[in-house]
Amino acid sequence: MSDQYKTVVIPAAEMQLCFENILLGKGFKKDKAVQIASVFTNNSVDGVYTHGVNRFPRFIEYTKKRYIQIDAVPLLKSKFNGIEQWDGGLGPGISNAIFATDQCMKLATANGIGCVALSNTNHWMRGGTYGWQAAKAGYVFIGWTNTIANMPAWGATDARLGNNPLVIALPYNNDAIVLDMALSQYSFGAMELSVMKKEKLRVYGGFDSDGNISDDPAGILASKRPIPVGYWKGAGLALLLDILATILSGGLSTQELSKQEAEYGLSQVFAAIDIAKLPGHSMIPSLIENIIIDYKQSIPKDAFTSITYPGERVLQTREINLSRGIPVMQEVWDGILKL
Amino acid sequence: MSDQYKTVVIPAAEMQLCFENILLGKGFKKDKAVQIASVFTNNSVDGVYTHGVNRFPRFIEYTKKRYIQIDAVPLLKSKFNGIEQWDGGLGPGISNAIFATDQCMKLATANGIGCVALSNTNHWMRGGTYGWQAAKAGYVFIGWTNTIANMPAWGATDARLGNNPLVIALPYNNDAIVLDMALSQYSFGAMELSVMKKEKLRVYGGFDSDGNISDDPAGILASKRPIPVGYWKGAGLALLLDILATILSGGLSTQELSKQEAEYGLSQVFAAIDIAKLPGHSMIPSLIENIIIDYKQSIPKDAFTSITYPGERVLQTREINLSRGIPVMQEVWDGILKL
Repeated sequence: MSDQYKTVVIPAAEMQLCFENILLGKGFKKDKAVQIASVFTNNSVDGVYTHGVNRFPRFIEYTKKRYIQIDAVPLLKSKFNGIEQWDGGLGPGISNAIFATDQCMKLATANGIGCVALSNTNHWMRGGTYGWQAAKAGYVFIGWTNTIANMPAWGATDARLGNNPLVIALPYNNDAIVLDMALSQYSFGAMELSVMKKEKLRVYGGFDSDGNISDDPAGILASKRPIPVGYWKGAGLALLLDILATILSGGLSTQELSKQEAEYGLSQVFAAIDIAKLPGHSMIPSLIENIIIDYKQSIPKDAFTSITYPGERVLQTREINLSRGIPVMQEVWDGILKL
Repeated sequence: MSDQYKTVVIPAAEMQLCFENILLGKGFKKDKAVQIASVFTNNSVDGVYTHGVNRFPRFIEYTKKRYIQIDAVPLLKSKFNGIEQWDGGLGPGISNAIFATDQCMKLATANGIGCVALSNTNHWMRGGTYGWQAAKAGYVFIGWTNTIANMPAWGATDARLGNNPLVIALPYNNDAIVLDMALSQYSFGAMELSVMKKEKLRVYGGFDSDGNISDDPAGILASKRPIPVGYWKGAGLALLLDILATILSGGLSTQELSKQEAEYGLSQVFAAIDIAKLPGHSMIPSLIENIIIDYKQSIPKDAFTSITYPGERVLQTREINLSRGIPVMQEVWDGILKL
């Protein structure tokens, strides 16, 4: 993080305990409090502050407003061999997503491949959390969530698509390769952070209110016209992921979510493949290693560029933040201490 | 198509018969000849000339060079409930992919969700073909293929990633919504067509040989530096799709394919979900319709822009080409008549 604003450094254990105590104070049961505090802390350890410490106050606010039902647990709606539908009961998105990830792994163990579609849930914070959960348990994982409308269709000026983050993960090197991508070129969290840090975006991220393509995050947040990844391609992908989340879960679509006063009651999909069921699965780690070794031999465009795989930078940040503590904006931490 | 080069107009039935006769002459059995001729013709009818009529000569060339084994059929390598591995035996990519799509639908019917991973196959031409096949039969479809290395990692100058096209499809309105996207901003076919038509690209498509971002398709084809969709995001997605195709099928990776003298022996993944197994599935068409109606209410940026869903423009082209005939570059058609 840059030095353009005041930060404090919080050890992970202290952050975890702080979150736990706040959650217990708000009426969460012990196991849920520990689980949710742990995910908010780990997201921060991994450098995903926008869906970690920076987002914790809004999570608490949503429980107060009853958008999030703190005691709700998922209920099975339907099952047919490898596919299941669950109703999240508006429970905490983190707990519901951890459950659904576990459940799709169980289905994969039994069927080779399994898919859990979850309706009526809440923001899962960082999708990569569930990618790591499944991949570290040895599974291939593909999952996504819909969101409220926050991105225009390609060629349109008003937001009718969600930026519906997509996660793909697989086991690698006693850890995981985890792709966690919102379908806007920049996630809203990333743009909000750039605004806070008074930084421009690296590449064009959207259009400003005059319709000009722009690298100014504040202007793009104001116009609500972020660019989909790959322009028309990402717009199409966002539309399809919303349709699939909606029809597979029987839950709310981006359109329906956007009629509400806030973003709650999301639809999500969690799919896993049990690669241990494949013949020759003992060779899979070396197949992956061969691909990564070749990928890493890419010629960088300059001396300042390193070629990393999805999730790799996170591992570096994780190590630094675990040893030195988590940098938190003073203003954010002060707010949390008042919760 | 523009008038910048000479075209002939070939009725679909004539094209189909012409392809069939050429294939029969090259030793294909009748049913395979009809099937393959039909896909090359339909891709052309749908306006995907790059993977239709324009590509047919290279398909014939690859059979002559034995990269494609004209009589090969897929053989089952392994099975565990919802997942199967098949060896494509270097058979025609079109026939193998039609088979694998059928097979993953059967697995989905039995398990709710099914996945076929296919090694040792060949170019499937247009991925959308298999999206339409599954979606028109009532299934949700997700599939992808790897390719030879044709796109640099983000920040790199040498191509070590494939642009690994991804297909997602679902039933809609007695037809289908089909997203068929290569993970380079432009497919090579699209850039080659722009070169032939002497047109610039609509948005930046890559870097030229001097490392400048560019909308000149010839320069990008020469530098072999197309941009991944969403820059680092599409690069990550391409890497993950190659790893998954490789480990799930037990086949060749992009790296291994790229060591060969030509692109053959690809790895592909075909997954389907049987939405008829979901409770309330009779409501699914109206859930999709609601989303599309809202999407279509998007405000276009100007009077010349229409907001379409993936696959929609194809339907318009299909109608025109079926009634008026298929426009083919004279040079291409003359070459085909000499095969």
